[in-house]
Amino acid sequence: MSKQRIAVVGYGNIGKYAVEAIEASPDFELAGVIRRDAGASKPRELGHIPVAADVSALGKVDAVLLCTPTRSVLEQAKHYLALGINTVDSYDIHTSFLQLRKELLPIAQANKAVSIISAGWDPGSDSVIRTLLEACAPKGITYTNFGPGMSMGHSVAAKGIPGVANALSMTIPLGTGIHRRVVYVQLEAGADIETVSQKIKTDAYFSHDETHVIAVPDIDAIMDVGHGVNLVRKGASGQTGNQLFEFNMKVNNPALTSQIMLACARATFKQQPGVYTMPEIPLIDLLHGDRESLLARLV
Amino acid sequence: MSKQRIAVVGYGNIGKYAVEAIEASPDFELAGVIRRDAGASKPRELGHIPVAADVSALGKVDAVLLCTPTRSVLEQAKHYLALGINTVDSYDIHTSFLQLRKELLPIAQANKAVSIISAGWDPGSDSVIRTLLEACAPKGITYTNFGPGMSMGHSVAAKGIPGVANALSMTIPLGTGIHRRVVYVQLEAGADIETVSQKIKTDAYFSHDETHVIAVPDIDAIMDVGHGVNLVRKGASGQTGNQLFEFNMKVNNPALTSQIMLACARATFKQQPGVYTMPEIPLIDLLHGDRESLLARLV
Repeated sequence: MSKQRIAVVGYGNIGKYAVEAIEASPDFELAGVIRRDAGASKPRELGHIPVAADVSALGKVDAVLLCTPTRSVLEQAKHYLALGINTVDSYDIHTSFLQLRKELLPIAQANKAVSIISAGWDPGSDSVIRTLLEACAPKGITYTNFGPGMSMGHSVAAKGIPGVANALSMTIPLGTGIHRRVVYVQLEAGADIETVSQKIKTDAYFSHDETHVIAVPDIDAIMDVGHGVNLVRKGASGQTGNQLFEFNMKVNNPALTSQIMLACARATFKQQPGVYTMPEIPLIDLLHGDRESLLARLV
Repeated sequence: MSKQRIAVVGYGNIGKYAVEAIEASPDFELAGVIRRDAGASKPRELGHIPVAADVSALGKVDAVLLCTPTRSVLEQAKHYLALGINTVDSYDIHTSFLQLRKELLPIAQANKAVSIISAGWDPGSDSVIRTLLEACAPKGITYTNFGPGMSMGHSVAAKGIPGVANALSMTIPLGTGIHRRVVYVQLEAGADIETVSQKIKTDAYFSHDETHVIAVPDIDAIMDVGHGVNLVRKGASGQTGNQLFEFNMKVNNPALTSQIMLACARATFKQQPGVYTMPEIPLIDLLHGDRESLLARLV
């Protein structure tokens, strides 16, 4: 059986773990890593791996994992879908993924490609659980409590603020879906903490939550990629209330994100051309192996 | 919009809650209840509901919920699929659902019908979670710990043993997927507890677990339909270990089972003819409402 060839686009936090996930999977081959600065110094751990600025240099590529910041996903996904290459991203803005989907759909269909969007853990696997629990108890309330842990999306957003050399945004669960953001920033020379703080607090990523901004000398010294979720639903099945459901996880965040993205890359090969979110794909398609053997073990 | 008309087959524990779930759902109409003894005394709460021995007496029926014991599911599902009526069951024998699927498949396809099998909570929603968690951490171990609570399948099986007037089988979690079964039996006049106990312990439902059989004067006095699950996975995402996942629920068992069956009935109308388990269907199909609005809320 020939293995599907996957390329990793971007080599930041998620990209590094995506390379590891591909190398650990029996049914995939790492086609290479795509970086804008492919000509620059190659990280040592990529010694044996092709690195290129353009996918055309990597031979046949069946799907790409877009391990780039959320804000560049639209442009990147368009580019690869237009080449007929399946894409997976972990686009994490809950209010605009439907717009992303709408813009990608005609391109995916025209080029007989499949894109699975917002395929991390939230949005992503948590979305799947929220959907399942709503089927289990249609009337009720779901609370998704995040952390404590580093939010990659929020950290990248904070890092994008002028005057910020590096940032780590911690998500602190206050219960019932309410969170505090504690943003640790390493300032650029001459930057002013008050100005930076104000810009962060008014950014769309932070403006809805209680946000604290704290200057630290070195982000690297406080960096940990652990994260967690506590997702709770209490509701009624039929006319019977007090049905109680709870999902908890404590994980290495980029390792989980990239693993889910890779599982979704597998699923792209089993869908009709189009753009999907995780609740729209059969979950069995995420797994490697003979379907009946998988079902015999999992059902 | 015309509502889908659903009939409930069998009026035991699950059937009663299935009627309630249909009546609580905005997009379904209860076509009626199908009982072998339809001519006999009608339970008072069914006063306003058509009860018939045959589906032909209930007008148009789009799907049936097979709320009958697992061991009659094959025969029942064949019957309705042959009439072109979609079926949902909560067939709960993990070792033989693939055989059920195989036997139903040609009938479903020939009659352009859809069957979703093993669509309760285990197998069912737990199967979905096991599948999702294996995608999140492909290498690792999942433990499904049930209870404490009444197993409907095991209680029905115990009730089927000669000499047993009524039975309640409690599932006690011992951790790491190991369970004790405590079977409370109300004996028929003249029945011998030793003989009954031996037959229960050698039944396929019980023979793999530590099983205790206890005679009680009245099952009704100890009956409670609460149940629970604690499903745990510890595994590696890519090459990163110690990824920790846990799903807990505490529920009214037949209320949840029937609600999930009804959600799957909804999904039958969105699948191609065939036979499916829950990990094989997109979860969004379980829900009522406009897809984009659902996704905007859940993803």
